[in-house]
Amino acid sequence: MNVLGKPTRSIWVEADGWSVGVIDQTRLPHHFATARLTTADDAARAISSMLVRGAPLIGATAAYGVCLALRQDASDGALERALALLGSARPTAVNLRWALDELRRAVAPLPPPEREAAAYRRAAALCDEDVAINHAIGEHGLALLQAAWARRGREGRLNVLTHCNAGWLATVDWGTALAPIYLAHDAGIPVHVWVDETRPRNQGASLTAWELGQHGVPHTVIADNVGGHLMQHGLVDLCIVGTDRTTARGDVANKIGTYLKALAAKDNEVPFYVALPSPTIDWTLQDGVREIPIEQRDGAELCDVTGRLSSGELGTVRITPPDSPAANYAFDVTPARLVTALITERGVCAASPEGLLSLFPERAVA
Amino acid sequence: MNVLGKPTRSIWVEADGWSVGVIDQTRLPHHFATARLTTADDAARAISSMLVRGAPLIGATAAYGVCLALRQDASDGALERALALLGSARPTAVNLRWALDELRRAVAPLPPPEREAAAYRRAAALCDEDVAINHAIGEHGLALLQAAWARRGREGRLNVLTHCNAGWLATVDWGTALAPIYLAHDAGIPVHVWVDETRPRNQGASLTAWELGQHGVPHTVIADNVGGHLMQHGLVDLCIVGTDRTTARGDVANKIGTYLKALAAKDNEVPFYVALPSPTIDWTLQDGVREIPIEQRDGAELCDVTGRLSSGELGTVRITPPDSPAANYAFDVTPARLVTALITERGVCAASPEGLLSLFPERAVA
Repeated sequence: MNVLGKPTRSIWVEADGWSVGVIDQTRLPHHFATARLTTADDAARAISSMLVRGAPLIGATAAYGVCLALRQDASDGALERALALLGSARPTAVNLRWALDELRRAVAPLPPPEREAAAYRRAAALCDEDVAINHAIGEHGLALLQAAWARRGREGRLNVLTHCNAGWLATVDWGTALAPIYLAHDAGIPVHVWVDETRPRNQGASLTAWELGQHGVPHTVIADNVGGHLMQHGLVDLCIVGTDRTTARGDVANKIGTYLKALAAKDNEVPFYVALPSPTIDWTLQDGVREIPIEQRDGAELCDVTGRLSSGELGTVRITPPDSPAANYAFDVTPARLVTALITERGVCAASPEGLLSLFPERAVA
Repeated sequence: MNVLGKPTRSIWVEADGWSVGVIDQTRLPHHFATARLTTADDAARAISSMLVRGAPLIGATAAYGVCLALRQDASDGALERALALLGSARPTAVNLRWALDELRRAVAPLPPPEREAAAYRRAAALCDEDVAINHAIGEHGLALLQAAWARRGREGRLNVLTHCNAGWLATVDWGTALAPIYLAHDAGIPVHVWVDETRPRNQGASLTAWELGQHGVPHTVIADNVGGHLMQHGLVDLCIVGTDRTTARGDVANKIGTYLKALAAKDNEVPFYVALPSPTIDWTLQDGVREIPIEQRDGAELCDVTGRLSSGELGTVRITPPDSPAANYAFDVTPARLVTALITERGVCAASPEGLLSLFPERAVA
């Protein structure tokens, strides 16, 4: 999507034809800075220090990290060292391991002199596949937004609420939950986005607000507490969020607080959509609340808030008493009964075993 | 309740017998500092700059502001000037106007030389009445906590979730929602409080966490997004919140985000209690969502976060992009159907017209 008026992906090969550019997302929304990765170490550090985040972008960065390693040394030993290094950069990221497996499969059978070029080809293809999946999600979601706009009689603005960042910054381009919004905006629907700030890490206030603003999509940042009130007063036409993990019956694990918005949507008859690339479906799971373990992160993420000081520098302030403990659950699970529909690259379906199997019949057990 | 191990009210007459002490709540939880008010101007500034906040404490501060004015000049003109000055310090505070009316009634009929002493008596009585009301709320709520503790088989800890600050800092002592918690703690029930940080003003992270910590009540600060997840996993035994305004049928307007917690409580069969002094009941209103106007405050409260820098100084950071607008709704309305019971100074009742009239039969229309 656009940055400073120019179409931009979240990761790219530089003009030199081999080094890799990424956006330093730790400095958003206050500073737009890019980083140039020239070694596998650079790529691993970009992942572990969260210069890049979001499952698809982490995978893409790891894939290019393999390319950078092979450029220096294409031996079996160097390949394995790079895969181990990159694989440990963010141990819980499923997509990271998947991308590394893809790269290994693409290059390991080849003689070393052919590996570098093959790796760059596979990494570029992974990126293009991600863009294609997200664009397809966008097209299917766009139909839902067009229908909602028609239900409004095409008057006023179409108010969409989203939580966290499931935008292009988390992917290679388009995003998942935001892809339909970008397409609707580009198609001339006057969409306006309520952006949950998404405590404790504020991905909404920083990343979602920034990327929507750069692309020119009207939006308003709100506290996570506000969505229910807006829905009670008819100020939300629909919700769209992403998901980190979806069960075979359509329960979705997403950023903490998603469940509360889904409850409010249900209580106010507001459609609640979840956008997802199909690789995030875990076909081995059914009951998300019982079966999906929820990561607990450092309480400091809650207690310490980082932003821009009046000097322009970034600074961090502590908001809690020194002796008060904090708990920091990263995700929650929204039961399928609260999800109006799932938006996948293959189309829209009910959040149910039957709905998912209608789009993914190959998953049916014989 | 206790501060630094010493029983403390949120407002008091100093040892000199006339000047008034308050806690500077703008510096909590980072610095515990008190302020000495010696004029009506001081009292008005303490209210308008939010050194003191919370309806009962604002009322008490205004009442003592009248005392301080009369000490300098007990004429009719000075009394009216003080009432006007203090009344405009926080125009939307209903309790403020009520306290000023009480003071006027107590002193205006008296000859000027008798007014100062009468004002101090009435102000002290207003404070004692607030303490008595809150203690009664605490006793009635304590019975609910004792019952919940018995349901748990008196094992582990009793987990209570609260939102915002309805503690002793918002009142003269005890608080409303926190009064039952303090009494339960003092009675030996191992109560543990999940403290919603309560964005955007963070009254939970700053004030509730601080006052619970000072009194020794175990607690954990959480993002407002977390409560639903905790309830899904049986980690909340009950919720207690305060309210700014209650309708005759039991709808409650409270800090933004309360509604979302009430939805989660309902979805997980967790009791959701609202504690209130009966003066907050507006008997003229029925449908809170439709009838209660919700204040919108400056978006800067959301975008700018204040806390303690690593230097120990207080600092403010901006968390949003410079061009992103923010909306800041201060309250929401929780419909009575989501409220398990109301806890008042007269007892516990259903959140319904019948429930409220059973405790306040004098309100029944003949």
